[in-house]
Amino acid sequence: MLSKLQKSLKQKQALLVSDRLNIRYLSGFHGSNALILITKKQASLLTDFRYSATVKSLPKQIRASITTDPSTEILNILKREKIKKLRLEAENITIARLKRLKKSLPGITLVAGESLIEPLRVSKTAEEIVLIKKAQQITEKTFKHILSKIKTGITEIQLAHDLEKTAMDFGAEKTSFPPIVAFGKNSACPHHESGNAKLKKGDIILLDMGFKYKGYCSDMTRMLFTAPPTPLQKEVYMTVLKAQTEAIKILKAGIKGGKVDKTARDIIKKAGYGDKFGHGLGHGVGLNVHEVPYLSTKYQKPLPLNAVVTVEPGIYLENSFGVRIEDMVLVERDKTTNLTKIPKKIKDLILSIS
Amino acid sequence: MLSKLQKSLKQKQALLVSDRLNIRYLSGFHGSNALILITKKQASLLTDFRYSATVKSLPKQIRASITTDPSTEILNILKREKIKKLRLEAENITIARLKRLKKSLPGITLVAGESLIEPLRVSKTAEEIVLIKKAQQITEKTFKHILSKIKTGITEIQLAHDLEKTAMDFGAEKTSFPPIVAFGKNSACPHHESGNAKLKKGDIILLDMGFKYKGYCSDMTRMLFTAPPTPLQKEVYMTVLKAQTEAIKILKAGIKGGKVDKTARDIIKKAGYGDKFGHGLGHGVGLNVHEVPYLSTKYQKPLPLNAVVTVEPGIYLENSFGVRIEDMVLVERDKTTNLTKIPKKIKDLILSIS
Repeated sequence: MLSKLQKSLKQKQALLVSDRLNIRYLSGFHGSNALILITKKQASLLTDFRYSATVKSLPKQIRASITTDPSTEILNILKREKIKKLRLEAENITIARLKRLKKSLPGITLVAGESLIEPLRVSKTAEEIVLIKKAQQITEKTFKHILSKIKTGITEIQLAHDLEKTAMDFGAEKTSFPPIVAFGKNSACPHHESGNAKLKKGDIILLDMGFKYKGYCSDMTRMLFTAPPTPLQKEVYMTVLKAQTEAIKILKAGIKGGKVDKTARDIIKKAGYGDKFGHGLGHGVGLNVHEVPYLSTKYQKPLPLNAVVTVEPGIYLENSFGVRIEDMVLVERDKTTNLTKIPKKIKDLILSIS
Repeated sequence: MLSKLQKSLKQKQALLVSDRLNIRYLSGFHGSNALILITKKQASLLTDFRYSATVKSLPKQIRASITTDPSTEILNILKREKIKKLRLEAENITIARLKRLKKSLPGITLVAGESLIEPLRVSKTAEEIVLIKKAQQITEKTFKHILSKIKTGITEIQLAHDLEKTAMDFGAEKTSFPPIVAFGKNSACPHHESGNAKLKKGDIILLDMGFKYKGYCSDMTRMLFTAPPTPLQKEVYMTVLKAQTEAIKILKAGIKGGKVDKTARDIIKKAGYGDKFGHGLGHGVGLNVHEVPYLSTKYQKPLPLNAVVTVEPGIYLENSFGVRIEDMVLVERDKTTNLTKIPKKIKDLILSIS
């Protein structure tokens, strides 16, 4: 990956990678403070004293530099290689940081542009897919394990903590995002923050969770019913499931993200819930839980081979309930592989709770 | 706070707050996507559909605007109030975002400068101090509770997970940062990442942890001994403790951060460990676990009244062991109040483990 990147660099130009996840992608390093400087001849990871032990496990193509003054170190390397132009990641460098860099790198032209690393991250390598699958396996083990903990009186936050602890015990590194546990009408808020609501028999439950394994994320949403669903709940659930199923059917490499979104959205619209589905259909998943590509009307680029994306339509009926179903799929040449194995049939999602 | 800010705004100028923590500071809102636009006449929080329920609890001085197109909404407000100049937070807005804002706000001059909110955050209000104390109380309950779990064979990561789960059960919102659990020689790495090392009788233990309560952080480091310390461990520990004690003694409002750092550093230097203390002495704590002011040679500003800072000297002997002791103190007019109540005498830190 690195040598490919170095070949793509123009003569007398260097690249400064500052985005934390891009740094992890290239080097495996995931401390809180680092930069990678890439020239045609070398790649250097600059970090501070705290990581002097950590950097010993960098890949051999990347040399480590422990420094309290990364700018001077960068300037020295650029001068040595007679490089006058340094490319920055425009999505990551703030205005204030650019100003500081300009001051500390006299004689160097700074060019902020789109990241050269993010396009590489879209198509997952075989190794990355293994890690994402592993993250999802941990998530599914966690989901199954937690079912027995769901009882009347448990609060959303208690269940969220149980989910986190269980996932960690199963080997997760951390959460992809704080688990969303929503009971009853709280499920109508797509991004509900788990709170002190207590579970009552009859409540619908929305569980949206994801965990990281070696930096790679999973993301899954399932509904649970603590009583057989009402006719309205059933209708809404089946509509969401149909939207998801049809979207997954047409998903493959080369199709535009917006088209997949539209397929799901049209089904929800036709069922009369068009205005109750206010978010995009899905997003890429990798080192970041939300990354390119997007299944969204705003994203009209074709999906690349080996992207991993979520497919997560939802219908949210304010003050009543909401339904979202979310799977994570691998985009292949003529189809997808669904990485999410937890069942979606209503009968498998009815819990008998005490 | 908000009306003070509005008064300080120049005529025909507005402020766009984009930093997540500044937004939380002003409004309590802590979703993942929001902006606050402040003019002399009004303050608007712009967010998306996912938060339509959450925004109902905003303070009454802040109106909520649910929108898929915040730029147009901002432009409309600015036009209505005949405002031509919009101030941005230079430390938060990336180069790419600035470019997008320029495009979507034609006719508006964008000025990126230092945040107007961060200086307000340095001196904590009485309400904030209550929340930080509460976060620290949870941390101390967690620390005490976990002592009984420390047994030979437990891994760093298991202990880290136990710490997280325990803190959550005691009411923490989340961690301030992933707990650092370092056994034996791993303690020599100041920022060790908890791993699979198993505890052996005789190991020194470094625990660096902090948890959030209603957004506010705590931060504390303690050493534990699983056998009476060796003479070298004792000497190093007592040196670090002396450095910390003397630094805390001179800490008060008005003193420069660099001077406090120097006090501790001189003691460590005199003991012969000057090159083994590679990080700053301390940092502010609030909504962010690392924020201004800093106790560091690079920070030569006087400390304001009611700042909350850590005091955390350390000595790290590579391949052998490290010692850090970290308390969180409230800076008052002529003294500090130490918010950390966990003992620091060696005799109180020796665990008898099986």
